[in-house]
Amino acid sequence: MAKNTNISTKALAGFMELLPADQILFNQLRDSIRQSYERYGFIPLETPIIERSEVLLAKAGGETEKQIYRFQKGDNDLSLRFDLTVPLARYVSEHMNDLTFPFRRYAIGKVFRGERNQAGRFREFYQCDIDIIGNEKLAVVNDAEIPSIIYTTFKQLGFDQFTIRINNRKILNGLFDWLGLAAQAGDILREIDKIDKIGAEKVRESLTALGLADSAIDRILQFINIKGDNETVIAQLQELDIDHPQFKTGVDELAEVTKYIIYFGVPTTNFKLDLSIARGLDYYTGTVYETILDQHPGVGSVCSGGRYDNLAEYYTDRKLPGVGISIGLTRLFYKLTTENIIKSDTATPTRVLVYPMMEDLKPPLELAAKLREHGINTEVYTEKAKMKKIFNYVEKLGIPFIAIVGEDEFKEGNYSLKDIRSREQKKVTFDQLVADVSAQCKRTM
Amino acid sequence: MAKNTNISTKALAGFMELLPADQILFNQLRDSIRQSYERYGFIPLETPIIERSEVLLAKAGGETEKQIYRFQKGDNDLSLRFDLTVPLARYVSEHMNDLTFPFRRYAIGKVFRGERNQAGRFREFYQCDIDIIGNEKLAVVNDAEIPSIIYTTFKQLGFDQFTIRINNRKILNGLFDWLGLAAQAGDILREIDKIDKIGAEKVRESLTALGLADSAIDRILQFINIKGDNETVIAQLQELDIDHPQFKTGVDELAEVTKYIIYFGVPTTNFKLDLSIARGLDYYTGTVYETILDQHPGVGSVCSGGRYDNLAEYYTDRKLPGVGISIGLTRLFYKLTTENIIKSDTATPTRVLVYPMMEDLKPPLELAAKLREHGINTEVYTEKAKMKKIFNYVEKLGIPFIAIVGEDEFKEGNYSLKDIRSREQKKVTFDQLVADVSAQCKRTM
Repeated sequence: MAKNTNISTKALAGFMELLPADQILFNQLRDSIRQSYERYGFIPLETPIIERSEVLLAKAGGETEKQIYRFQKGDNDLSLRFDLTVPLARYVSEHMNDLTFPFRRYAIGKVFRGERNQAGRFREFYQCDIDIIGNEKLAVVNDAEIPSIIYTTFKQLGFDQFTIRINNRKILNGLFDWLGLAAQAGDILREIDKIDKIGAEKVRESLTALGLADSAIDRILQFINIKGDNETVIAQLQELDIDHPQFKTGVDELAEVTKYIIYFGVPTTNFKLDLSIARGLDYYTGTVYETILDQHPGVGSVCSGGRYDNLAEYYTDRKLPGVGISIGLTRLFYKLTTENIIKSDTATPTRVLVYPMMEDLKPPLELAAKLREHGINTEVYTEKAKMKKIFNYVEKLGIPFIAIVGEDEFKEGNYSLKDIRSREQKKVTFDQLVADVSAQCKRTM
Repeated sequence: MAKNTNISTKALAGFMELLPADQILFNQLRDSIRQSYERYGFIPLETPIIERSEVLLAKAGGETEKQIYRFQKGDNDLSLRFDLTVPLARYVSEHMNDLTFPFRRYAIGKVFRGERNQAGRFREFYQCDIDIIGNEKLAVVNDAEIPSIIYTTFKQLGFDQFTIRINNRKILNGLFDWLGLAAQAGDILREIDKIDKIGAEKVRESLTALGLADSAIDRILQFINIKGDNETVIAQLQELDIDHPQFKTGVDELAEVTKYIIYFGVPTTNFKLDLSIARGLDYYTGTVYETILDQHPGVGSVCSGGRYDNLAEYYTDRKLPGVGISIGLTRLFYKLTTENIIKSDTATPTRVLVYPMMEDLKPPLELAAKLREHGINTEVYTEKAKMKKIFNYVEKLGIPFIAIVGEDEFKEGNYSLKDIRSREQKKVTFDQLVADVSAQCKRTM
């Protein structure tokens, strides 16, 4: 049958599809995040990609509903999940009696949003989430563990200079209530969230447009402008003349979280109280987080989240407070690679290419099997090809070694090992071959 | 807001959703398969879950088209992938010039089929595929590497007694052509494939129903009944009076593959020539594989595949022969767990639960941070709870150790380490703690 030239073989717009070298790099990041989450004892969890639409749309508002991939199959009204939190809420409600609380779970999986098509926006993308869910209650110290996990995760990804920005929604909400602006808190928070992007003056304009008095706006902008090291910020908050119980609880929580974060081993250079952080989403009720790469602020927050009072109010009467974060891995990867912050250096897991230079394939195939038993990723080049083609193959893929098995070497019980980077070739025994390759693999890990 | 009691929190029928202990076990299998595939130098590849319907349906026939999840989003006619092979064909066609041939890729991912609902059948399930794709040609020795990968993979999964059954479609097709039954080859192969399930007599009835003469049926059944060790089968095939070029090529290939498999290190107890294996799918053109767990034949083939002439004829004019296999991991996992062939023993990655028995959380949090730095998965129990509740927590989750940090221990610079299995508790230094936990973790790996 001939090619059907009408069929486009491109991946759909907004769907990431990587070449081998980038896919390997992507997997390294994903593995690293997973290892870091498990280091903190989070339990892996996987829920289906397809859910009943009524589950996903129980809470969802306008934007989500427009973006969702929804379809009918037989009698079922189905949708693709648009985040990992709603499925978690359903899962915990369903399996409540089989779970152990506090329930610490991580999930790394694809979610789907039919967003408007633009560079850096994906319609199918990975989220890497952790959440700690309490049954009826959950201690504030958990809010301090989260920055510790963010810290470990980004360190392990290879970053040193990043800042976890922390705030507490009770402080903001208490302030607004004290100012008589409680009803508008959501709208005000949304505007404040933009201060980094659009600046204080634009925020002032938006707040004026919301009908706030100049005195209230002054008070809010002064407030979110409280700056300094963490002790200074806490001290300033404690000295403020705002006599409001929610505000005071928020300040106490923030002080406690700040103290514990240090016990968890996070350096003070990597976290910072920032009273302007609000995280637009309505369900955060306490501590909130954002994470900025210091040298690449344009990338935006690479890890965000917060404390919420009730995970699953739409599915169960049980009160399930929790705290969690999410890394949008697909977008993060896209930013890191397009801005050349990270780069892939190999397009294969193979460390040794065995190249048979003799008719009898027994010695080369046996060598490959033995190398694999020693934990070395090995392939055999079995196609008929000239040496030049072989070199082209290993160089394109980034394979560091060729082990040549020829008649002469075989008679001597040796192999010729070629180091592709140094271009050196030497005769080695099997043990030397394993030692050389293992040493090189360790260096590049 | 109160619970919306109309919303079912169950996962949809046909969609696997695991509790933590089973999820961890599932992940162990998936990781093991991945490691095994990488050991052979296969490149990880991921394609989107959503594709253009025209791509997926370019070849698909009746059943696939009925089962596919297809929907409209904006102007796009979209579908969820139903296997990993069609997306691979599209990918290779699209990225041909960026790939290196032979192209060795593995893919582990979810696929979707709206099958009729029945136990053990899943609508969303994992496939774990490898394929070796040649550009215009691909040596037969690759067909021998595949059983070697199956062998390594199932050994690493913990199985010893399994049999990789091997045949070559050219032999069967040559035989049918020689019998003047070439036009019916597909139908005949489909019936032969059922011989294990329904027996020879039922197959005879089906072949009679297809209009085959008794003499031809005798010849076919005699043929697929050729038994014995691998050398005997090859010898018998070579002695047959079937003078047909395709038949002879098939016998030669099977002989070559059998020779190389042994070089690759597969014990003769783990593979077997079986002339009844046909693998219904029309696109296999050479070597074909099935894998049976010897003690659990009812599970069916746990890993199947074969050689094909042309991967991507619908998307490119380039000829891309290949050979590959697929493990249906979700179904395999379901069978292995429901038949109690494998069992999970832990419901968390955590190895040590740090339990603070003092007001000041600094020492316990610092201990946890230090343990994590030593690569030990650690969590801290920070909720207020009695000792009995803590024990219940670690036993339900299968956490092997509790490290108690109390005032007395802290003053002495020690910790109390409780081994949950032996119920022993002893005072240890940090180094002893790390050594004890590491030793236990190694034992259970």
